[in-house]
Amino acid sequence: MQTSTERVVIVGGGFGGLHAARRLARAPVDVTLIDVHNHHLFQPLLYQVASGALSPANIAAPLRGLLKRQLNARVLLARVVDIDVAGRRVVLADGGLHQGSVDYDVLIVAAGSRHSYFGHDDWEKFAPGLKTIDDATAIRRRILEAFEFAERSGDASDTAAWLSFIVVGAGPTGVELVGQIAEIAHHTLRGEFRSIDPQRAQVHLIEAGDRVLAAYDPALSERAQRSLERMGVTVLLGSQVVAVDRDGIMVKQGSGTRRIASRAVFWAAGIQASPLARRLAEQTGAEIDRSGRITVEPDLTIRAHSDIFVIGDMAHCTGDDGKPLPALAPVAMQQGRFVADEIAARRANAGQAQPSARKFTYHDRGTMATIGRGRAVAQLPWLKISGPLAWLAWLFVHLMTLVQFQNRVLVLVQWAWAYVTRNRAARLITGDRPLADVEPAAQALESTNIHRTTESN
Amino acid sequence: MQTSTERVVIVGGGFGGLHAARRLARAPVDVTLIDVHNHHLFQPLLYQVASGALSPANIAAPLRGLLKRQLNARVLLARVVDIDVAGRRVVLADGGLHQGSVDYDVLIVAAGSRHSYFGHDDWEKFAPGLKTIDDATAIRRRILEAFEFAERSGDASDTAAWLSFIVVGAGPTGVELVGQIAEIAHHTLRGEFRSIDPQRAQVHLIEAGDRVLAAYDPALSERAQRSLERMGVTVLLGSQVVAVDRDGIMVKQGSGTRRIASRAVFWAAGIQASPLARRLAEQTGAEIDRSGRITVEPDLTIRAHSDIFVIGDMAHCTGDDGKPLPALAPVAMQQGRFVADEIAARRANAGQAQPSARKFTYHDRGTMATIGRGRAVAQLPWLKISGPLAWLAWLFVHLMTLVQFQNRVLVLVQWAWAYVTRNRAARLITGDRPLADVEPAAQALESTNIHRTTESN
Repeated sequence: MQTSTERVVIVGGGFGGLHAARRLARAPVDVTLIDVHNHHLFQPLLYQVASGALSPANIAAPLRGLLKRQLNARVLLARVVDIDVAGRRVVLADGGLHQGSVDYDVLIVAAGSRHSYFGHDDWEKFAPGLKTIDDATAIRRRILEAFEFAERSGDASDTAAWLSFIVVGAGPTGVELVGQIAEIAHHTLRGEFRSIDPQRAQVHLIEAGDRVLAAYDPALSERAQRSLERMGVTVLLGSQVVAVDRDGIMVKQGSGTRRIASRAVFWAAGIQASPLARRLAEQTGAEIDRSGRITVEPDLTIRAHSDIFVIGDMAHCTGDDGKPLPALAPVAMQQGRFVADEIAARRANAGQAQPSARKFTYHDRGTMATIGRGRAVAQLPWLKISGPLAWLAWLFVHLMTLVQFQNRVLVLVQWAWAYVTRNRAARLITGDRPLADVEPAAQALESTNIHRTTESN
Repeated sequence: MQTSTERVVIVGGGFGGLHAARRLARAPVDVTLIDVHNHHLFQPLLYQVASGALSPANIAAPLRGLLKRQLNARVLLARVVDIDVAGRRVVLADGGLHQGSVDYDVLIVAAGSRHSYFGHDDWEKFAPGLKTIDDATAIRRRILEAFEFAERSGDASDTAAWLSFIVVGAGPTGVELVGQIAEIAHHTLRGEFRSIDPQRAQVHLIEAGDRVLAAYDPALSERAQRSLERMGVTVLLGSQVVAVDRDGIMVKQGSGTRRIASRAVFWAAGIQASPLARRLAEQTGAEIDRSGRITVEPDLTIRAHSDIFVIGDMAHCTGDDGKPLPALAPVAMQQGRFVADEIAARRANAGQAQPSARKFTYHDRGTMATIGRGRAVAQLPWLKISGPLAWLAWLFVHLMTLVQFQNRVLVLVQWAWAYVTRNRAARLITGDRPLADVEPAAQALESTNIHRTTESN
């Protein structure tokens, strides 16, 4: 038994990890929060960065700033590559610059999830997903570049391919993203091009199941689909993606397959827990589900390992209805606070780790998703609404949940502005190769002349 | 003689190119503005993005949005790789996706400049400069990562190397950037780390000349230097950089040389005009100066090529005092408007290109530079001031010059917030390899344990 201050190590600074760390502020423990990013990200608004409505800093806050005054907490910017269960330590590695490990007495694993391509990881480069700031700015670049390339292309079928957008997966992220793309094409960019009409863009939402927003009430799903269709989105249900390449996707519909040409395909079809879940399972014998989540006990520990908690998207935790809890921010936050209380209670009771009799229960206060400008669906415990009222509720809840006051003000100003003008100020093409791969080349002189006005004058 | 609408092609959407394009709104010409970025950038505030005080979108506005209502203008997102003077066309090439050319009747070349390493281009990877949004977010990442690596390093001299920052060049950009770094170390990050004290960071400003802000009055230079020193910056004058590598720089001071260890070196020591200037000179016989600028006639054309104007950082244009005009935004803007008026006047007079008798004159309304929180120097035609009043003037002028109203509001809110709290909300480490190069590795298990509390308990 150890009498010194207990070392609580938290892997991941998302909703689960951050809320666990903050809740431990008054517990007699040393908290180390490890994340590969230096910021906590408000993921529910990430699609607004991908669409150029908000800037990354509006929805991200530096973890060090958030935990600055919590003197029992430290932040480590590091990549966790393994967990050594027997040795009770977390193994880190970063670009060859540093390697090392961090010992723990109690571990909270909250490393989240990435998108899942159901065994087709090679699709990722053609159909990126949306989980990080860099994902969002990459998607923003792809959307905006598609219109730019369409403007420069002289060929009709080439132009049509550039003006075809596909979002795979009609969960909340897919619905929100596809709604934004439709808004960009039909409103934001109107009048900004001379050779193409952005309104002629084809925007597809592909879903393998039989309705959009499957986690919501069927009536809300139907209203959401009608809203999307009014916005110009083609919704294809019962359509399973069987191939993705540089020029589009192949979908299976019933017994037939069809090809949809597109150079801007985005993936919101599934998530896969952090590979750390598998590493934990290998060492503890715990079960892993289809999404790579590790099965946890009712108190969110791993069976026979009361010193390891797993929370958030990584945990397969059964709800009162017998179904696993969804991968949502409120679940992770409540679990974070639960394990923090659990750790504090153990210290208070005996000063040593022991199995708890408590059980985590998720309090569902409702879920909401936006569809477009002034349109949303909200499914609250006693109420199901859609339309402008749901949208206002959505706006209010998300604004109030942003961790930093400054961001609430800035986001409100930007939303108000974007609502009135339909403009998106953060429509920047940045990063990667902004058309930058090419050196002055002699053969360029032999190539075609793309100035349309030459012929028309 | 051509009777159809004259085709004016503008290379570059910076201050010169954008102002030329807008000024041509009512002229009977077709305007094509070509830029490799999709946004106009307010470069004078770029250092605020590098320091995490502002977001990229606060100081950048999509060019298409800015020229949307100007129906005689179109925007092309493309990289100009050459200008074919004899064939009167601009040659484009982009990542293998597109190649082509654009014909012109009149050409305005406003492609700006990049940093110059005086023949040592290999220094760039160790000492990046600040010209684009991507430069700024890369510098932001380097500054913030240095503190993170220092926090994780257990070795005293390694920590000291990470906490050493160097800015080379004491012009306005260098002075502004070094002031921001000092603020970050001494105020913004205070209390956020547990193993290091950010206030112990060494911040150096290296200048080959004998004073900072050499373009200003010597009295203002002295006040600026004193301000910087009070902020904790070590100013080294008469110090010429002779080597730069991964671990620091070598400077020559008088007859001796000394080494300063640093892993965060930033370059603000000189600029070099776009290589298009050299291509133009080769074909027209015009002269190129030491900074790669092309010598222009009093009307900003190239001698014997009245159809080609060169403006902004690319143009060597002599002022009334016989010295070349400085590479400043107001010079480029005035030149942009001048050439637009010139082009419109030619059309009005004769409907064909002919040499002009007009001469460009720069109206110097003053220059200003900030040093830190509430500190600035301003050199106006009849007045030289420093201190809080100069800072307020600086703030007002820069705020009012931002092209989009939304950005004025957002930037004002963020400045006010940052001023009161000394916080910088946009302190995000994004892009490139956020510690991401490493896969789970067996040898990681053999490496050192970096958790300090293990020993101290």
